[in-house]
Amino acid sequence: VEPGAAQVLVGSHLDTQPNGGRFDGAYGVLAGLEIVRTLDDRGIRTRRPLTIVSWSNEEGARFPLATTGSSVFSGQLSLEDALAQRAVDGPTFGAELARLRAAGGEEVGARPVCCYLEVHIEQGPLLEASGSAIGIVTRSQGLHAVEVVLTGSALHAGTTPMELRRDALVGAARIVELVSELGRAAGGLGTVGHLLVEPNSRSVIPGSVRLVVDLRHPDVAALDTMAARARDGIEAIARDARLEVELDTLLRVDPVAFDEEGNRVLAEAAARLDLASLELVSGAVHDAVKLAPVVPATLTFVPCRGGVSHNPGEYASPEHVRAGCDVLLQAALARAEVVP
Amino acid sequence: VEPGAAQVLVGSHLDTQPNGGRFDGAYGVLAGLEIVRTLDDRGIRTRRPLTIVSWSNEEGARFPLATTGSSVFSGQLSLEDALAQRAVDGPTFGAELARLRAAGGEEVGARPVCCYLEVHIEQGPLLEASGSAIGIVTRSQGLHAVEVVLTGSALHAGTTPMELRRDALVGAARIVELVSELGRAAGGLGTVGHLLVEPNSRSVIPGSVRLVVDLRHPDVAALDTMAARARDGIEAIARDARLEVELDTLLRVDPVAFDEEGNRVLAEAAARLDLASLELVSGAVHDAVKLAPVVPATLTFVPCRGGVSHNPGEYASPEHVRAGCDVLLQAALARAEVVP
Repeated sequence: VEPGAAQVLVGSHLDTQPNGGRFDGAYGVLAGLEIVRTLDDRGIRTRRPLTIVSWSNEEGARFPLATTGSSVFSGQLSLEDALAQRAVDGPTFGAELARLRAAGGEEVGARPVCCYLEVHIEQGPLLEASGSAIGIVTRSQGLHAVEVVLTGSALHAGTTPMELRRDALVGAARIVELVSELGRAAGGLGTVGHLLVEPNSRSVIPGSVRLVVDLRHPDVAALDTMAARARDGIEAIARDARLEVELDTLLRVDPVAFDEEGNRVLAEAAARLDLASLELVSGAVHDAVKLAPVVPATLTFVPCRGGVSHNPGEYASPEHVRAGCDVLLQAALARAEVVP
Repeated sequence: VEPGAAQVLVGSHLDTQPNGGRFDGAYGVLAGLEIVRTLDDRGIRTRRPLTIVSWSNEEGARFPLATTGSSVFSGQLSLEDALAQRAVDGPTFGAELARLRAAGGEEVGARPVCCYLEVHIEQGPLLEASGSAIGIVTRSQGLHAVEVVLTGSALHAGTTPMELRRDALVGAARIVELVSELGRAAGGLGTVGHLLVEPNSRSVIPGSVRLVVDLRHPDVAALDTMAARARDGIEAIARDARLEVELDTLLRVDPVAFDEEGNRVLAEAAARLDLASLELVSGAVHDAVKLAPVVPATLTFVPCRGGVSHNPGEYASPEHVRAGCDVLLQAALARAEVVP
């Protein structure tokens, strides 16, 4: 390795969704490990250092700020905000890093970076349907996630006349339907995946509901329109149901383009290995999406059965897992430059 | 006390709602204690024994079968089913009774009962609005509570096209709105107070939702119509959203009439004490509702501020709390028969 040479980063994340699968994230980190081991086994040396990365809190499941590690690394989230975020079960991210002895001392940005390579299961059905082993991601769709807190009055469900109620769940129900309709109408995606009712007892009218609206679209203008319509619609629903409402943007990721030169290298590697490849748009946010604005980044997909992900039924075949590693190894060698 | 004489039961319940108030239930048990203490202080003896009762699990908050104690006592719930019910946090009712050393050995029905007297805050706005200190409950509305479990597919919210989704929360949202409309249209009450989403993560389409539909009406035929319309509507919503659905009746309480002779005694006592009284229909289920089919039972209300209940803001003034105790003491003395 040449002193001071910019690094080739290979990785993904190890955290997962509640009741998620075994491949989402872990595959890309293990692929980095497999590449480094293969180089060691063969005695191959490179001019640039090859670094395996496991980004923290990609999923945003326990801590709200998804892609925490890659967002801080790429300058899109301050270290202070990252450390201060609170887990759904209470402690801050900073406190948990300290408790697990996972808080490193190195300054963000201390090492020069040449490029970032990530391989991941597709989490969608297109590769399987096309029979291609390799997906080369050209762009990723944008994401706009908003937390909504509705507040009404928690009163007795057996004694409060319908016309006097301020039922936060009735307002929330309308928002769930609105978000689904917005996704459909815009040709994008609209989901309410997280919703909590307080006090959540059968005989008490819901006094407050906290939910998260998740909007996605590959086109930035269409995403902005969806977000504006969601905001207006939510405010109108709250007024109509006589509820107080608070809106808080949790996450905003603009659509990004991946490195064209990097994608050419991936396509050539797939062709050399006799693997069919397909260009794709990524529906999900990945660490590579956060890296792309600041370093040349590529995102490679392999097929997963039935497109199923965020579910214990998630599965990718050994030959597809291997194909992804093989292509990534070739790209890593090209970027890191083999020392003869 | 005359040996073998049937008992005068005075009481209510000590359990409460999550984030509930201080008066709902506890007031009626403490009123019983205050009556017994007053008799002791004055050296008054009665022919019939006066027994203070605290019925277990009236609210159905931690354990699903509301009015557990009074339902078993009145023969409307088997002891086996009561003991086997599971808390939201896991253990059975039987196991918790044993752990708390609260499982008595006396057989249900071992003691003959003369009558049951309960005083409770109104949990509604009518007494306050009318300026009456005492509410005499003539009837209670019926209640039909159904647990609904909707099952769809928990897939990635960023990659699953809208038209391929089976989103359990979109179905649940329509049910919440349907239940609210049914309550309004029937001149009754319809509430979804309890709703849980699985896996409940922002970027995962809800794979299942568990909710409870609570329907109430003072007329038994109107209640049956509401329940039938709810069932048909829920099944249609599930079909339309391609969700599996399970329906399970949690609780069914028919409208009941309270003891007319007992109510006459209460009205006379209020008049003697110079307290304005009002006849009411009870919207909520109370232990007295479960007792009424098997023993002469009365239910007395006192005003609570703003009709607020199941909420920490629940409040009844000292003079109203006292007025309820005074009237109940008179009724208890009339029933228990003072020994001169």
